[in-house]
Amino acid sequence: MESVERVLKGDRLALARLLTQIENEEPSGLEALSTLYPHTGRAHRIGITGAPGTGKSSLVNRLALHLRQNGWSEQTDSEAESVAIVAVDPSSPFSGGAFLGDRIRMRDLYGDPGIFIRSMASRGALGGLARATVDMVEVLDAAGFAVILIETVGAGQAEVDIARMAHTVVVVDAPGLGDDVQAIKAGILEIADILVVNKADLPGAENTLRALQLVLELAGTAQRTNPDAKAENAASKTVWQPPVLPTVAIQGDGIAELAQAIHNHREHLDLSGEYAVRERARVRNEMEDLLRQQLMAGFLAHQPESTFEDALAMVLAKKKAPRQAVRELIEGRNG
Amino acid sequence: MESVERVLKGDRLALARLLTQIENEEPSGLEALSTLYPHTGRAHRIGITGAPGTGKSSLVNRLALHLRQNGWSEQTDSEAESVAIVAVDPSSPFSGGAFLGDRIRMRDLYGDPGIFIRSMASRGALGGLARATVDMVEVLDAAGFAVILIETVGAGQAEVDIARMAHTVVVVDAPGLGDDVQAIKAGILEIADILVVNKADLPGAENTLRALQLVLELAGTAQRTNPDAKAENAASKTVWQPPVLPTVAIQGDGIAELAQAIHNHREHLDLSGEYAVRERARVRNEMEDLLRQQLMAGFLAHQPESTFEDALAMVLAKKKAPRQAVRELIEGRNG
Repeated sequence: MESVERVLKGDRLALARLLTQIENEEPSGLEALSTLYPHTGRAHRIGITGAPGTGKSSLVNRLALHLRQNGWSEQTDSEAESVAIVAVDPSSPFSGGAFLGDRIRMRDLYGDPGIFIRSMASRGALGGLARATVDMVEVLDAAGFAVILIETVGAGQAEVDIARMAHTVVVVDAPGLGDDVQAIKAGILEIADILVVNKADLPGAENTLRALQLVLELAGTAQRTNPDAKAENAASKTVWQPPVLPTVAIQGDGIAELAQAIHNHREHLDLSGEYAVRERARVRNEMEDLLRQQLMAGFLAHQPESTFEDALAMVLAKKKAPRQAVRELIEGRNG
Repeated sequence: MESVERVLKGDRLALARLLTQIENEEPSGLEALSTLYPHTGRAHRIGITGAPGTGKSSLVNRLALHLRQNGWSEQTDSEAESVAIVAVDPSSPFSGGAFLGDRIRMRDLYGDPGIFIRSMASRGALGGLARATVDMVEVLDAAGFAVILIETVGAGQAEVDIARMAHTVVVVDAPGLGDDVQAIKAGILEIADILVVNKADLPGAENTLRALQLVLELAGTAQRTNPDAKAENAASKTVWQPPVLPTVAIQGDGIAELAQAIHNHREHLDLSGEYAVRERARVRNEMEDLLRQQLMAGFLAHQPESTFEDALAMVLAKKKAPRQAVRELIEGRNG
């Protein structure tokens, strides 16, 4: 397939076209994805998430610039990494959602051939968005990008889905986002490998840093007192302690430290064997998703449209519960 | 079934037990749900969503109290409504997530027999949470609660799911939640029937109110210049214009106006015929969801576990793309 060859050779136009085909779920795009799949598995996939107002986009922007200019580590002579950015955030300036003012200097990124930016068109159903994002990240991986930054807005299923497709999850916070913001951390901490307090020059930054540290310590204590977790930790050689890093993204402060922390996390994943565990969980989840989707399509294709509509009418009339109606649909006894 | 009888008679203990069974997806609970289903369809289901820090929980609390004391409207002699609260928000004090300080006086609600509060245990997968919430709301509806308040944290799939199961969606905002918060409104506005600016006594409240009004006007203009939307609006007798209401929930300010607006929206739904349209879309979506889930369970039950595991191994070895492997699984040719 010609377009696949061109994507593998680094043709940006072919890449952009293929991504659009995949976003639109065109058969040609999905076929190309199958052909590209053996070339995947080399990119470091990094999810960057957090509430609106934390400055995620600036952080992603600066991190991409840093990786292009300095690579992962300032100590080593590491090479500049090619970076793809996928913005799955309706509030991101990358995805064109920030219509009330885009304060980020996007021109720093545009024009650099080592950076590729793709924003997801905002849709009603975030489920389809997550599905398309998975496929697009695979294509970017096959296309040879060393780093894929996946930016998404915090909270909800989309975030969990993004976390599932990333090797390293960076959760971004900022001071002054309201009283009960701390509370949400309980859920987010479960998926965070690295915590960032952006806008660390604002008043209250010290409190936010301390609060996150406190929550992490509490979580650490809980883990230590859980015998199962203990045994598991002993089995893996090292235990990852999520660092809490202050940054001021718009000034570039703390970005080198963030890059270093991400690099350290990747090394931890490789050394501890957790990389393989995460990959396995990610692929299993993706396949289960596809199986559900394809079984549904196959089922509906093999019967008249009226069958489902009749069952729907019965439920709307409260004559049957949804679960019962669906069971009867599958067993082929309706009416 | 005895437990069903008891739930229909208003037995709170039986209700709480049934909800737990349903949350745990126990067969007895799902069977009871089928028996209860013909009794559903009377409750007004209200989704209340917004970012952390907006004071959603206080608002829900106050709204519930108001409905108990005054009913929907201060003008009429409306009866006090029985209210159920379902908290699907990890940061909500109802769901026990706000471990860094619960500032809301919950005792105002506890002890009132006309109020029932249920929080969803926080889980890794919000998908399962949304599924269980749907079922639990059906049970509360059948149990005779006139109003069901579903509180959820803003952004993401969970929010969209909650919006799908609600008749009226209230989106809560607050001043001072950061620069790019406005941007996210683009997505949230699509699901909002009523907008609330809580903490309206804080500096910046006027700006937030104006910004939301502006966004609504822009959205209104877009609708008017779209000929399809125009025709559709002409067909339905009235067009709902989402109001933007200031509140100070902890002082109870603006709560009566919010209750009135929700009541007005429900009247609009009934008069315009949109109620039936929403119900149809909601039930259709729920049935498709169940169909996917049950087809998957049925498929996996009819073959050895190793079949799926073998396919997974092929994908992990990059020998097959996930989509291809799943297609072959369904067609029964593996290896």
